[in-house]
Amino acid sequence: MTSLFRPDVEALAGYTPGEQPQESGWVKLNTNENPYPPSPQVVAAIKQALEGRLNVYPDPLGRKFCQAAADVYGVDPDWILPANGSDENLTILVRAFADKNDLIAYPYPSYVLYETLAEIQGTRRARLQLNGDWSWDLQRNRPLIEQAKLLFLPNPNSPSGNSWSLDCIQKLVPPNGVLVHDEAYGDFAANPHRMELLRSEVGSQVVVTKTLSKSYSLAGLRFGFCIAQPDMIRGMRKVKDSYNCDMIALAAAEAALLDQDWMLANRNKILNTRAQLASELSESGFDVVPSDANFVWATHPVLKHQTIYEELKARKVLIRFMQFPGGIEPCDRYPDGKLDGLRITVGTDEEIQSLLKTLRVVIEDSPST
Amino acid sequence: MTSLFRPDVEALAGYTPGEQPQESGWVKLNTNENPYPPSPQVVAAIKQALEGRLNVYPDPLGRKFCQAAADVYGVDPDWILPANGSDENLTILVRAFADKNDLIAYPYPSYVLYETLAEIQGTRRARLQLNGDWSWDLQRNRPLIEQAKLLFLPNPNSPSGNSWSLDCIQKLVPPNGVLVHDEAYGDFAANPHRMELLRSEVGSQVVVTKTLSKSYSLAGLRFGFCIAQPDMIRGMRKVKDSYNCDMIALAAAEAALLDQDWMLANRNKILNTRAQLASELSESGFDVVPSDANFVWATHPVLKHQTIYEELKARKVLIRFMQFPGGIEPCDRYPDGKLDGLRITVGTDEEIQSLLKTLRVVIEDSPST
Repeated sequence: MTSLFRPDVEALAGYTPGEQPQESGWVKLNTNENPYPPSPQVVAAIKQALEGRLNVYPDPLGRKFCQAAADVYGVDPDWILPANGSDENLTILVRAFADKNDLIAYPYPSYVLYETLAEIQGTRRARLQLNGDWSWDLQRNRPLIEQAKLLFLPNPNSPSGNSWSLDCIQKLVPPNGVLVHDEAYGDFAANPHRMELLRSEVGSQVVVTKTLSKSYSLAGLRFGFCIAQPDMIRGMRKVKDSYNCDMIALAAAEAALLDQDWMLANRNKILNTRAQLASELSESGFDVVPSDANFVWATHPVLKHQTIYEELKARKVLIRFMQFPGGIEPCDRYPDGKLDGLRITVGTDEEIQSLLKTLRVVIEDSPST
Repeated sequence: MTSLFRPDVEALAGYTPGEQPQESGWVKLNTNENPYPPSPQVVAAIKQALEGRLNVYPDPLGRKFCQAAADVYGVDPDWILPANGSDENLTILVRAFADKNDLIAYPYPSYVLYETLAEIQGTRRARLQLNGDWSWDLQRNRPLIEQAKLLFLPNPNSPSGNSWSLDCIQKLVPPNGVLVHDEAYGDFAANPHRMELLRSEVGSQVVVTKTLSKSYSLAGLRFGFCIAQPDMIRGMRKVKDSYNCDMIALAAAEAALLDQDWMLANRNKILNTRAQLASELSESGFDVVPSDANFVWATHPVLKHQTIYEELKARKVLIRFMQFPGGIEPCDRYPDGKLDGLRITVGTDEEIQSLLKTLRVVIEDSPST
């Protein structure tokens, strides 16, 4: 019998889980987790939820969480859609807005999941090629932006960590489509772009997505949410599973949002460590893109990135080696337009010192490209 | 501007959340929750998980849970796919197997979510009309079964609670498609059909779905899983979000499965209460379908079901009034082929006595249809 799977699914590469070593002993700087624990209020809220009734369904709308998020962001609760991680919200967006003949667009190089989600849905898709300095060539990309039904914009971007300005973002809103402003790393940016975008002239075409995985130290919990005008939220609700968030996650997420001080204190520690990391990588000869996120993107003009990654891994320091076969616009920094490099999560000061120490050993032993 | 949503999504009725009163004081018999708490091992496992690191991502494959499920069901771990509730597995199945031109089929009257998922995906869809005694007219439905790419079979069925035999199930496997054997209520059945189906001649075309919401008393946790041959699981993994299960739910679910005695003790209590409920409803003049699930389907030849539901609700007893506008084959029990009725979850003995007492008051006051 031929495959029973949809041809779009059959064509996908097999799923390769990210490297998530479950045992201790690693300096783990590969998936942009926050090195600090979540607020003690989160743990207290989960323990309190355990006193409740796990045998009954949670509130399908997560109204208590929505109220907390609304208070933090200065909107009404019907502007909020909670989800089982930001990944689920991205999946809901694709299923809500993009039909087979619609175009899903996203910058390149950027977060690879957007393309995977478009492939699963079987839509048309387009990479919007970024300049070598990670800025936008709006003129070149204009025809694709105008055709897009859904345009995913991670801001700050990954793997580069840079942010784009409000003025630039507004020019990326598709005239007949939806801009998804993915703020997974927004809390680490100097200027998180939030409400002004949703309240601007193009506000009815914008969905902001946020996650508790990074700034709130809750990657293990799986919780994200959208902020958008109520008509958008109502439509997205039709697509989501009724009970997509469990009662423990809802209680924990509410507690996390209500302890802004804890999140901001960790954010500030990470920003200090980020400056230190960027500076020391530069001194070691790396080119480091100025980062607005909790990671840095580092390339070396001579050394082989894959070797560095592997040698670090052999010493139980895990960073991310990333390749972008589609390349980037050739420029001084990337003269041949080929792009691979190292994405390093900002851990604690101790973790980063351990990385840098190991990196110096690896560099001394390393053959050039 | 016209709607930005996909036409299929725009056409969906607005999402109406189920009745999940968050305050206490209700006798809640409307969404088939287990009235007993989950195993103490579950709570202990969650507390232990809280000692771990919530700031790091969970195992994307949930391997410890898969091992536990494999041990319980006598398969290898690569036969298991954990998900954020059985709802998520049903969504993954639709997205993995059904393209626009494919047919999704499901019995009628049955669980309404199958049709909603097909509508969201925008596929062709077909109701397989059941006989008035809830049996299959295989000859009549044969042409649709043969066309189906995906056939959802809840067994036991909802709202009726009856089960179909292994012989019948095997005849429902689409020759060029997938049969989803939805065992949400399987643990309450006299003969839960499990491994023999997956190991039969048609095993490569079968996916069994299970949930911890009902028999394991964990509706609040959102956890379900599939059992299928490894090629099926591999393809479904391509469609799921990478981190679809959080570390707390994974730990809790593993603990729940490992305490089979707790589940079975609650199951047996529920079966005893079910017999009592069915018997007393019959004495009150209701027609009750013999149930293999943790609920019963009751219709009354004279009284108006909606009124009974509303009068009970006014007295803080919540059951489910269900209407099936597509009807059922006319027969003695449903002479005009119209179908509405009352689905009543089997609660504790105390809850059921409270329901029956209130019901007697309501019936005395109730006008006939």
